[in-house]
Amino acid sequence: MVSAVIVAAGRGTRMGVGVDKLFLEVAGRPIVAHTWEKFDRSATVDEIVLVVRDGMQSTFQELAEENGFYKTFHLVAGGSERQDSVWNGIEATNEGTEIIAIHDGARPCVTEKIIADCVAAAREVGAAVAASPVTDTIKETGSDGHIVGHIDRSILRAVQTPQTFKADVIRKALGLVQERGIQVTDDTAACELINQPVKFVESDTPNVKATSPADIPYLELLLRK
Amino acid sequence: MVSAVIVAAGRGTRMGVGVDKLFLEVAGRPIVAHTWEKFDRSATVDEIVLVVRDGMQSTFQELAEENGFYKTFHLVAGGSERQDSVWNGIEATNEGTEIIAIHDGARPCVTEKIIADCVAAAREVGAAVAASPVTDTIKETGSDGHIVGHIDRSILRAVQTPQTFKADVIRKALGLVQERGIQVTDDTAACELINQPVKFVESDTPNVKATSPADIPYLELLLRK
Repeated sequence: MVSAVIVAAGRGTRMGVGVDKLFLEVAGRPIVAHTWEKFDRSATVDEIVLVVRDGMQSTFQELAEENGFYKTFHLVAGGSERQDSVWNGIEATNEGTEIIAIHDGARPCVTEKIIADCVAAAREVGAAVAASPVTDTIKETGSDGHIVGHIDRSILRAVQTPQTFKADVIRKALGLVQERGIQVTDDTAACELINQPVKFVESDTPNVKATSPADIPYLELLLRK
Repeated sequence: MVSAVIVAAGRGTRMGVGVDKLFLEVAGRPIVAHTWEKFDRSATVDEIVLVVRDGMQSTFQELAEENGFYKTFHLVAGGSERQDSVWNGIEATNEGTEIIAIHDGARPCVTEKIIADCVAAAREVGAAVAASPVTDTIKETGSDGHIVGHIDRSILRAVQTPQTFKADVIRKALGLVQERGIQVTDDTAACELINQPVKFVESDTPNVKATSPADIPYLELLLRK
C-alpha cells in the first residue's frame, strides 16, 4: 500500500500578504486542485492525506466534491513548521502502508511517471527524491556580494517532491527530529540522522513549484498542455 | 564607451542535430534577433560586436536589415571554443572602449536595467555578472546517484550574462587564458587568474537561456509580454 501526504498548509508569503498561493487559479482551477488530481488519478497511490491549515478543512472538502476526486482521503491540520505538518500527515496514514510519498501542494506538474519512479526507488533503497540536474552555472557568493568560488554543477541536483520513503524509515527519521527538537531543511535531511541513503530520481518534466508571482504564467503554460 | 560582444557562434547541440537554436522562431522572430534588439535599443551600449559562425555573416547582415537595427555593429567569426569566440569579439571592439559586456546570443530576455546595472558595477569594481539567487533546494550527488551532501543555497548564485568588464581587465584575463592554453568555464573564471574581484548583479526578470526544446514555450511567454 502506498500513501501520499500532500502538504497544503503553507501560506506562501512570497506571493504577497493575504494570498494563499495554493488557491491561486491556474488553468481554470486552484493550484492545489491540480496537485491533488495527479495523486487522485495515480495508479500507484492508494490513499491521500492532505495536511491543511486548521479551519480550511471544509474548503478542501468542497474542492474534492467540485473536482470529483474519488480516492480515499483524510484531512489533517498542519503544525507550526513544515516538518510538524509532515509528521501530522504521516500519523494519519494507514497503519499498513508500506511507502509514504510526501509531496508539496504547490508542485502541480508532477506526473504519474515521477510518482511511480520515486515509489519504486523507495521500495528498493528505503528513500528517494525527485530531482533535476542543475543547468545554470553556479558560483558561490561572499558576504560582500562578490564571487568567492565556482561550484561544479555536475554534482548538484535541485531536489523537489515527491520524496518517498519506506513507512518505517520516515517514521524513525522524523521521530528522531521531533524527539531532538531540531529543524530539517527537507524530509530527506532527516534520513541523514539515521544514515538512510536517499536515491535521486530524475523528473521527466519540469516539476515546478509555485513560489513567487513570476512562476504563475509558466505554471499556466505547463498545466494547459 | 561601452561595447557589447554578443556570442552567437554556438550550435546548441542539446536542441537536436541540425538545429541552430539561435534561429528558432520565438514570438515571431529568431531568438538571436530578440537578443540583438535589446542591445540595439540599449541607451547604455554604443557598439555591438556579433561573434557568428563563419559563413553566417550574410544571414546576420540580413537580420539587421529585416529588423531595422541601427546601432554600429561588427560581425566576426567565432573560434573553436567559446572562449576563443569571446576573444575574437573583444579584438573587434573599438580601441577606445572602456567597458565590454559579453552576452550570450541565446539569452533574449535581458533588460536595459540588467545591462545598465552590470555596466555600472563593472565601472566600479572592474568586473560584474548578472545572476539570480538559487530557489531550489540543492543537494550533492555521489557517483552512485544518492545524496551525499546538502548545500546551503543562500550562498549560491546562478550566473548568467551579461558579464561586464573594464576593457583592460578582460583583455588581460583572457589574454592569460590564451597564453596558457587553459579552458575556463565562463569569462568571470578568467578574472580569478588575475585576482580580479567580480560583483554579482541581481537580474530583475527571468534572464532565461534557450538551452533545450523545453525552454522554448517559456521564452515564447516571456517575449510575447
